[in-house]
Amino acid sequence: MKVVHTPLHALHDGGMELHRGELVPCFEMPSRVDHILGALTRDGHAIQAPRDHDDAILERVHDPAYLAFLRGAWAEWRAEGREGFMLAGAFPARGLRRDIVPTGLHARLGYYSFDAGSPIVAGTWQAARAAAHCALTAADLVAAGERSAYALCRPPGHHAGRSTMGGYCFLNNAALAAQRLRDAGFARVAILDVDYHHGNGTQEIFWERGDVPFASIHGDPNTEYPFYLGHADERGAGAGEGCNHNFPLPRGTTWPEYEATLARALEALAAHAPDALVVSLGVDVFEGDPISQFKLAAGDFRPLGARTAALGLPTVLVQEGGYAVAEIGENVASVLATFA
Amino acid sequence: MKVVHTPLHALHDGGMELHRGELVPCFEMPSRVDHILGALTRDGHAIQAPRDHDDAILERVHDPAYLAFLRGAWAEWRAEGREGFMLAGAFPARGLRRDIVPTGLHARLGYYSFDAGSPIVAGTWQAARAAAHCALTAADLVAAGERSAYALCRPPGHHAGRSTMGGYCFLNNAALAAQRLRDAGFARVAILDVDYHHGNGTQEIFWERGDVPFASIHGDPNTEYPFYLGHADERGAGAGEGCNHNFPLPRGTTWPEYEATLARALEALAAHAPDALVVSLGVDVFEGDPISQFKLAAGDFRPLGARTAALGLPTVLVQEGGYAVAEIGENVASVLATFA
Repeated sequence: MKVVHTPLHALHDGGMELHRGELVPCFEMPSRVDHILGALTRDGHAIQAPRDHDDAILERVHDPAYLAFLRGAWAEWRAEGREGFMLAGAFPARGLRRDIVPTGLHARLGYYSFDAGSPIVAGTWQAARAAAHCALTAADLVAAGERSAYALCRPPGHHAGRSTMGGYCFLNNAALAAQRLRDAGFARVAILDVDYHHGNGTQEIFWERGDVPFASIHGDPNTEYPFYLGHADERGAGAGEGCNHNFPLPRGTTWPEYEATLARALEALAAHAPDALVVSLGVDVFEGDPISQFKLAAGDFRPLGARTAALGLPTVLVQEGGYAVAEIGENVASVLATFA
Repeated sequence: MKVVHTPLHALHDGGMELHRGELVPCFEMPSRVDHILGALTRDGHAIQAPRDHDDAILERVHDPAYLAFLRGAWAEWRAEGREGFMLAGAFPARGLRRDIVPTGLHARLGYYSFDAGSPIVAGTWQAARAAAHCALTAADLVAAGERSAYALCRPPGHHAGRSTMGGYCFLNNAALAAQRLRDAGFARVAILDVDYHHGNGTQEIFWERGDVPFASIHGDPNTEYPFYLGHADERGAGAGEGCNHNFPLPRGTTWPEYEATLARALEALAAHAPDALVVSLGVDVFEGDPISQFKLAAGDFRPLGARTAALGLPTVLVQEGGYAVAEIGENVASVLATFA
């Protein structure tokens, strides 16, 4: 399978996240990519660099004002004489207004965020932009006739909404890939999100659209991040009514229940008769993941991939989470092997 | 003036706040009380302990489920084997649902919070409850005939909404005092909030009520905390339509402009013909405050108090912010002197 990768991801490094009352180095770290790249190279996948895309294409999915904020945030931070990393500390949550974009830097940082776990550092914009280009390039490859392609995106993307960052995500790579496939002529592009955490950003972006049905299998948001989206009663609205399919599962879920749920998710997507597929490929459903609570074994990733590949659709796989760094390469490689 | 104080406030100590990408000790610290108490003792004010009130009275202003959360949060945290302090990290902000109270501890912590700056420690509930009792006791004193009384509340309260904590605040002491005065027979209780930061919690609690008109003079939320409330166009709703008066002012505001604005705020409140007054007394409008940006001099607090006292209403003064610790006692004492 063609693999799209750029070392620019490593520019996003050095930030910390607020985790259970402590600032800790982000679980989402550059070495994740090294392990994936190692396993995919060993397996003989063809690695290629992303094609550069004009920033205007990002506006197909994201709010221009949000993009402008991301692009300039670090320079504003430095202009205030600050160093380290940017981390939002106050948010337009319950009881507060969401209808005014405030002018101050810290106010805007919180306005565009929903957690204190997604640090912006000097290279974040460049890395996020490069990750988006990986996803767009993989979509271009599939649009050009490849049966499948894999975008080794970092930072990940599925938590990023039209104008929100969070969960280590800034630009929604999977949403950009899906939109790219739509723009290339595919009539209906399904998105399957198998990351442990609900793909709240992707859901939000396509909530009112019927042309990009979305299904997500994830930890129950009652206890699992992102907490405030991902319930089964979220079905879409307007033209997207009935096109959103959430499958929250309890902590400790193992392969038999996961497999049955995956079958339901794939069936739900197939019912929309898609002609292309995007997979938000988080491998944090793995039992060894340090911040996730499903119990899939390494050997379960191959059938997970095989069931998905059996849809028989042109497919773009986009890397999302997975924080068991030593095993992440094998787990991703297992999925990709089933598409080859 | 009668001053209500309890040393129990000191149980709320040891937490840190996320401030500009760093965890730092809270600017809101126990020694603030020592300085205030020193100045007020010197000035001959009579210090008394709060009367204990049943927790049910807190439900006059706060959501019972929120109170249950605050009451049990630390025990839940410890039951997970955690130490240190609790600090929310993810929030139901833009793009996310606010209509479901999640079951998990960390999910609930974020659900009930709007910032990563209000740590819960072992003694937080006991201290917040004691601060509320100070405010209630001061209200009882005024209801019993005192012309004025001062509640030395810590933690402060005006950022706490019906079911939200933030800005160092857990229980809304000023709102509880106002409600107590209403329940004691005062027909219309005005609240004047002179803290540098908008009293978003108080505004929210009385937003749809005509019996507790609210006026706040504060830093422009475009750049100043709490960022997402406090604009001049917020006028109240329903029975409270026209009863909410916000006066955001720019950074660097000095006494002449402040005084003119205070006159407008007092005039707006007087138009509602209140028969009692609660003052949310933050003294972080002081030029030496480390996290605020107005430039009132120490000598401006006496006229600030005198203008307010000139309303001629039975008045409960409730301590809110003020982080120039060495000067906080003098500044509070200057205001209280004008009510004596």
